[in-house]
Amino acid sequence: MARVTRQHLVRRLTPEGWSPRSDRLAVEEPLEIRIGGTSFAVTMRTPGHDIDLVNGYCFAEGIIDAAADIATARYCDGAGPDGLNTYNVIDVALAPGVRSPDAGLQRNVLTSSACGICGSTSIDQVLGRIGSPLPAGPEFAAHLVLKAPDLLREQQKVFAGTGGVHAAGLVTRTGELICVREDVGRHNAVDKVVGWALREQRLPLSESLLVVSGRASFELTQKAATAGIPVLVAVSAPSSLAVELAEQTGLTLAGFVRGDTMNVYTHPERIRA
Amino acid sequence: MARVTRQHLVRRLTPEGWSPRSDRLAVEEPLEIRIGGTSFAVTMRTPGHDIDLVNGYCFAEGIIDAAADIATARYCDGAGPDGLNTYNVIDVALAPGVRSPDAGLQRNVLTSSACGICGSTSIDQVLGRIGSPLPAGPEFAAHLVLKAPDLLREQQKVFAGTGGVHAAGLVTRTGELICVREDVGRHNAVDKVVGWALREQRLPLSESLLVVSGRASFELTQKAATAGIPVLVAVSAPSSLAVELAEQTGLTLAGFVRGDTMNVYTHPERIRA
Repeated sequence: MARVTRQHLVRRLTPEGWSPRSDRLAVEEPLEIRIGGTSFAVTMRTPGHDIDLVNGYCFAEGIIDAAADIATARYCDGAGPDGLNTYNVIDVALAPGVRSPDAGLQRNVLTSSACGICGSTSIDQVLGRIGSPLPAGPEFAAHLVLKAPDLLREQQKVFAGTGGVHAAGLVTRTGELICVREDVGRHNAVDKVVGWALREQRLPLSESLLVVSGRASFELTQKAATAGIPVLVAVSAPSSLAVELAEQTGLTLAGFVRGDTMNVYTHPERIRA
Repeated sequence: MARVTRQHLVRRLTPEGWSPRSDRLAVEEPLEIRIGGTSFAVTMRTPGHDIDLVNGYCFAEGIIDAAADIATARYCDGAGPDGLNTYNVIDVALAPGVRSPDAGLQRNVLTSSACGICGSTSIDQVLGRIGSPLPAGPEFAAHLVLKAPDLLREQQKVFAGTGGVHAAGLVTRTGELICVREDVGRHNAVDKVVGWALREQRLPLSESLLVVSGRASFELTQKAATAGIPVLVAVSAPSSLAVELAEQTGLTLAGFVRGDTMNVYTHPERIRA
């Protein structure tokens, strides 16, 4: 856990005055993803599960559809300016026949050719990616949905020490938490979970719910739908576009899931009281 | 406020069972920024104060140094696919002599030529941008720093209705909250605040503190330092790289500022107990 948290001496002010105190910080470092030797993205992340992150990120960006689309993903094996390997650069080699992401730039240009980019444009892009809305079912027991944030919190080791990270987890219909990932970036936490599932050949995740420690944005809902996850459980509020996307992709979106209450924004038929 | 929040009918589960309820959602929509007719970025944001956002974003990205570097910034005046203007596209024309952002791509390539991208690389880029660390001073009374999150919360109108947005605000040394912006994206909220200050010709913001409703990441700390803000006040935890960047740029970083206690991570000399 050496790189996941770091000690820092702070000055704490209380009504009794100033005192020194050692505080644990969540580590944030850049990760550069290179594809075929070309820089593709730099994301600020908490080190750990980086190969999951790279798989999940490339999947979310539409570069790959399966783990086999990546031939190799390895830390750059050279040294940085100070002679040490930073483990902050990952070289990805795509499998033969997988298109490199230059197409991504082109997609961006197409998006911008009309004057009227709007929520529908963004939703249409996701629908185009996933092909068709999620199939009906399965059902999840309401008590299990309500319990999902607690299950997640029990496993949030970095959060417990720092208060500074988000988490995402997969919970099965029988209430088993099968994967938890923490990160300073909430989108990274979800990419790590989906990347893990991709590598484990568990996609589409049609029998699990995704629980996230914060709010539900368009981007997180997109990642859930693209991975075939039928139910997204958020501890806090969803945005308007997250709700619209969930509605149109057939995803069940629950927010403010706290204690024994929750709001179900879309497709409540999957939750059995 | 029509586009900032939106009503949505939810099903609420409590121990008494299911009931229908009307819920207010924070609106999230894409904003496309075009520079010289070319798509530069698409960010998911809460509509409102879009010109501030564009100014702050272009400033943070190093495209502009002053409001005068933008000749015009206007909503695209055509119609979208459904014949209506979405007000989600802004056309920016840079002033004569201001370089268009193609240089950004080049910068990215330079960054990635070494194997060892790390926190220091990222910090060096910020130091290169701001030229030298922030000057010493001024002092802020501790009671005022402690009060900043409350001042912000009192003005968080969208949050009060939705629970779904972040906020950023500027507080002067005399305790006046001079600018508040809310957004589903916390980086957008800060860009809107800095963009407002840029347009008001108040940069560098050397006599104000920036208060944010969530955590302090590298990116938010970078935005504060670049705008010359001497003190960053966060309600929640900072990341390791936020603390390192604050240390090296000479910025005072306070976290977990709640009630009558706070942690000061760097440069406590600006806070007078």
